[in-house]
Amino acid sequence: MTVEDQPQQLPKLAVIAREAGVSVATVSKALNGRSDVSAHTRRLVAEVLERRGYPRQRVRPARGSMVDVMLQALDSPYALAILGGVEDAAWRAGVDLVVSAVCDRTKHGQPPPAWLDRIGARDSAGVLLVRTSPTAAQRAWLADRGIPAVIVDPRRKPPAGLPAVASANVDGARAATEHLIALGHSRIAVVTGRPGVPCAADRLAGHRQAMAAAGLRADPRWEVCGYFQQDDALRATRRLLASLPHPPTAVFACSDSMAVGVYQALGEHGLRVPDDVSVIGFDDSWAAAHVTPALTTVRQPWPELGAAALTALLTDGGPGRIELPTELVTRSSTAPPRPS
Amino acid sequence: MTVEDQPQQLPKLAVIAREAGVSVATVSKALNGRSDVSAHTRRLVAEVLERRGYPRQRVRPARGSMVDVMLQALDSPYALAILGGVEDAAWRAGVDLVVSAVCDRTKHGQPPPAWLDRIGARDSAGVLLVRTSPTAAQRAWLADRGIPAVIVDPRRKPPAGLPAVASANVDGARAATEHLIALGHSRIAVVTGRPGVPCAADRLAGHRQAMAAAGLRADPRWEVCGYFQQDDALRATRRLLASLPHPPTAVFACSDSMAVGVYQALGEHGLRVPDDVSVIGFDDSWAAAHVTPALTTVRQPWPELGAAALTALLTDGGPGRIELPTELVTRSSTAPPRPS
Repeated sequence: MTVEDQPQQLPKLAVIAREAGVSVATVSKALNGRSDVSAHTRRLVAEVLERRGYPRQRVRPARGSMVDVMLQALDSPYALAILGGVEDAAWRAGVDLVVSAVCDRTKHGQPPPAWLDRIGARDSAGVLLVRTSPTAAQRAWLADRGIPAVIVDPRRKPPAGLPAVASANVDGARAATEHLIALGHSRIAVVTGRPGVPCAADRLAGHRQAMAAAGLRADPRWEVCGYFQQDDALRATRRLLASLPHPPTAVFACSDSMAVGVYQALGEHGLRVPDDVSVIGFDDSWAAAHVTPALTTVRQPWPELGAAALTALLTDGGPGRIELPTELVTRSSTAPPRPS
Repeated sequence: MTVEDQPQQLPKLAVIAREAGVSVATVSKALNGRSDVSAHTRRLVAEVLERRGYPRQRVRPARGSMVDVMLQALDSPYALAILGGVEDAAWRAGVDLVVSAVCDRTKHGQPPPAWLDRIGARDSAGVLLVRTSPTAAQRAWLADRGIPAVIVDPRRKPPAGLPAVASANVDGARAATEHLIALGHSRIAVVTGRPGVPCAADRLAGHRQAMAAAGLRADPRWEVCGYFQQDDALRATRRLLASLPHPPTAVFACSDSMAVGVYQALGEHGLRVPDDVSVIGFDDSWAAAHVTPALTTVRQPWPELGAAALTALLTDGGPGRIELPTELVTRSSTAPPRPS
């Protein structure tokens, strides 16, 4: 055994903490390779130990200046807008983004196994998962190596312990329905997203809150499911219109693409937007400004979600869930109801 | 000088070439660190030299399994579609993509200087530039290190020696105008893209070729500039309609977004599409299928462009320019002219 190989006495945690400018708990986490410690903090701790001659290998290796982004798919404007926000924050933080997507490479929509081989061959400072989440095995693998992960806009309930960044979907949906109520509507239908997706449940909850707060009954027959798809929303709205003696005076479509399906179904029934029926969407996608009439909707802060997720990944812990506010964007598809 | 430092006799190029399974010219390029040799080939050559005991440092280092993608911006569906194609090809090739964008970080729209610092700190197998091109200094830097570069969908004439991948813009535009001519149109206006952008010039050339081949005069008054922008196309079409005694019976808008501007201008003049005026676009963007009436257009093979560029980057040289075919997509915005 050479001199360099001899283990040395670990300095007291409090000493390391003071020199690194972090808490004792953080030092402890860093030494234990916990995933909720940022690359920056690990580096600070490692530097203190190095200055004090403590062998490097006893500390989790300081991660490199690379962050992995795994998107569910690269086929939606949302993916692009989120990625744009991540890229901007990464540029400012001086880290490189390694981008990949699940696409249809796995049946369950989670990252393929080969992904970890790739990450293992590099020095990843952390992992951002956009609209996808790691398998249990992948989570364990990342945690073992102290690689932090953050989920953006989760499509299923995030696994315990994994921070998530999302729009304030409940508040945004409540604002949408409140806007319709403020215009004088009371017969308000809602076209909901895919059951089981957290944001779909949140938006329905927000709608119901607004209805309840205004003393309006949220009749289950006025709640139909459009699965976040334009075609499904078209069919659901057709069924709604066929089953009711009187059409609603307003429809809250829980995504802009479903609002386009609602437009189509109303058109088929000879109902005009907003003269006969007001329609409000959710997302503020490119389509919203370009359909006729231009769609009133709730803007999701896509780039801000991406930027906040990257910042959460590179800084210590933070809250388990970050919600960013939405914004009501009023265009031409909502108006007071026709006097009855 | 130690034994390891002593230079050894370089094997004959022909010997290396035979053993590596490549041409003598390629070996020469590899040894000279030329940027038009793939990482794979450099590795093959390096392996032969290593087997023969030739010191490693005399050969360009074999590059890693990472490719850099620098996009002009992350704000268009085209950027996303190209990136999707690159990602898919990269996944299949087993290389990681490091993604960044110019955005508005430089005045000239070329990659910022800090980009090279980042690449220099890693082991980049090559560089894909989407709708941007390197500065002369950046090109020299990349060439010095033997890092190959390929430009996708160039917005300016690519620098000599840099391969480019683009749609067959001349052919695609000719097909667009031929479609209008086949329907019976002869008074065909064209709304062109930004002057100086290669694809804008190519599409105008394709339009003129089709007009000439049909014996139709391409009157300069029927050629207006929309700068690839919806608003500029709207204004240009307004001016066109105001200046002509009779409106054209068809308009070729050299991008889908400009076609939307043409729709607006025609609507202002009480002209219906396609009853009064046929309109054809170029791109097959998301908008094309969603405007009313749905837009006949020329599909650009975005994902294929991205995939072809990555393949060109990872394989040897290939042609200086790769053109991929476009496809005419017939929808509801084109019809025979109204009988006069």
